[in-house]
Amino acid sequence: MSVVSGDFASEIAGRGAMSFISIREVGPRDGLQNEDSVPADAKVRLLDALSATGVQRIEAVSFVHPKAIPQMADADEVWSRATKRPGVRYSALVPNSRGAERALAAGFTEIEVVVSASDTHNRRNVNRSTDESLDDIAALIDLLHRSGATAEVIISTSFGCPFEGDVDPARVAAIVDRVVADGADRVAFGDTTGMGTPRRVEDVVGRVRDRHPDLPLLLHFHNTRGTALANILSALRMGITEYDASVGGLGGCPYAPGATGNVATEEVVHMLHDMGYETGIDLKALLDAARLAQEIAGRELPSGVLRAGPRRPL
Amino acid sequence: MSVVSGDFASEIAGRGAMSFISIREVGPRDGLQNEDSVPADAKVRLLDALSATGVQRIEAVSFVHPKAIPQMADADEVWSRATKRPGVRYSALVPNSRGAERALAAGFTEIEVVVSASDTHNRRNVNRSTDESLDDIAALIDLLHRSGATAEVIISTSFGCPFEGDVDPARVAAIVDRVVADGADRVAFGDTTGMGTPRRVEDVVGRVRDRHPDLPLLLHFHNTRGTALANILSALRMGITEYDASVGGLGGCPYAPGATGNVATEEVVHMLHDMGYETGIDLKALLDAARLAQEIAGRELPSGVLRAGPRRPL
Repeated sequence: MSVVSGDFASEIAGRGAMSFISIREVGPRDGLQNEDSVPADAKVRLLDALSATGVQRIEAVSFVHPKAIPQMADADEVWSRATKRPGVRYSALVPNSRGAERALAAGFTEIEVVVSASDTHNRRNVNRSTDESLDDIAALIDLLHRSGATAEVIISTSFGCPFEGDVDPARVAAIVDRVVADGADRVAFGDTTGMGTPRRVEDVVGRVRDRHPDLPLLLHFHNTRGTALANILSALRMGITEYDASVGGLGGCPYAPGATGNVATEEVVHMLHDMGYETGIDLKALLDAARLAQEIAGRELPSGVLRAGPRRPL
Repeated sequence: MSVVSGDFASEIAGRGAMSFISIREVGPRDGLQNEDSVPADAKVRLLDALSATGVQRIEAVSFVHPKAIPQMADADEVWSRATKRPGVRYSALVPNSRGAERALAAGFTEIEVVVSASDTHNRRNVNRSTDESLDDIAALIDLLHRSGATAEVIISTSFGCPFEGDVDPARVAAIVDRVVADGADRVAFGDTTGMGTPRRVEDVVGRVRDRHPDLPLLLHFHNTRGTALANILSALRMGITEYDASVGGLGGCPYAPGATGNVATEEVVHMLHDMGYETGIDLKALLDAARLAQEIAGRELPSGVLRAGPRRPL
């Protein structure tokens, strides 16, 4: 049987280069940020294991105030000790200019900043309105560009807010308009608490793409309510080729033990490969990294492919 | 904001009656069959709770030899005590003519039989080849029709076999040809060990629908590797309107505690409703039933919507 057949074969043939999907591994940052007491040693081991999987991009650390997120207090040490593998793009997340300066000093040239599409969520996170944060981000983008780095703006709660409920896609699109005008190089939509569904994805992506057809878009899903792979399927069909995922599904247990946060990288890769997409990732090496992540977390991670193994032996 | 917008709005408008999705709740049978020592009382309570959710169809029990599946030894008692709610279609699964006679005697008029698309899987289950089972099924269909009941043939391992690996969609289609020729009223495709992906769904459904455009098809997914809702999304777009699901994700822990078997009914309904589909199901009542299922199982069930709640308060 051919690797790709049926509708997907013609889709992929029509897509050309779009049969390559670029995964950004966020386990070391978004994942470990939610785990307590992980020693720097273990963080370096996980980063190095991930760098060896063939993944194109890794969100390595965040440079935040140690009082705000003590789990990332050792970001400088972790990053300085990690192997920087040629061909892998590493990025860092920063909350403000102090963080940006640390990230630049550490040598990062791809930097992410965050704003929430929901005003309530933004205020709860940083005690500022979305508009105030957007003013800060405009200044941050300038700072980064002057230093030769790129700026990605992550818009969290893009598919819903745990405080406000639905978020109007028009509001998300207006934020995109603003940050694009301010010079953002890329935009990511974060499904912060797993409120995304295929319909929400189509609403947001469709509206933004109509206005910014050439803007690189990345999607970041949580699997809190089981929809993560369905959301990715929906976005694939809209031509989106960049996705965040976290090894083992590491990160975010907002509700209870076993509750899922980030979609597991190996579940994404496993589905994509079976559908004939390429990711550059060796699933076997990724599963090794997922086992390491599970050992580091000290609990069973919510990844079906890690638990049950791939649908066929590798 | 309208309930349905964007691409889905036009899709649903184009579909007409297809915006109604018929869910068959299989928790009482496929779910409880995998739980040990559930008293008949609890089974009746769960059935009655599910009957009150607005779900259209319930797979209530199976009539199998108590030595083969002791969990279903009390099927007659459970069924006789359960409330038969007008408007709900109840079905039973049977392995052979003895089971069919019990099901008919108990008053069922919708009866399911199973065969595996994989010869190895079929032999391991019933010690017969797929072809031998198909001969038995031809006789069973006759028996059921003579008694005024309908016969649905469930083809398990339709999207992959844990022993043989990929299953050729041509083989699945040939089995459909055979059972249709033998008089089957409906066909279901079972993703027995969660090997389905959107591409496999398109391959199997596409091939069968080309040959039998008017044959009612039902899909039964397990969420073992996270793909269940993506598979359903794929099938929705091919016009499939009937799906099995199990309350709470009850059933099938083939690998480890927390491993998922059947896709959780509330995850399916939650996604469908947000996409503008109707199911007739009251999600609040369904979540009550899921909590009852969890209490009966005595363990946390693998349902994100049960754990985290719906994306918006009901």
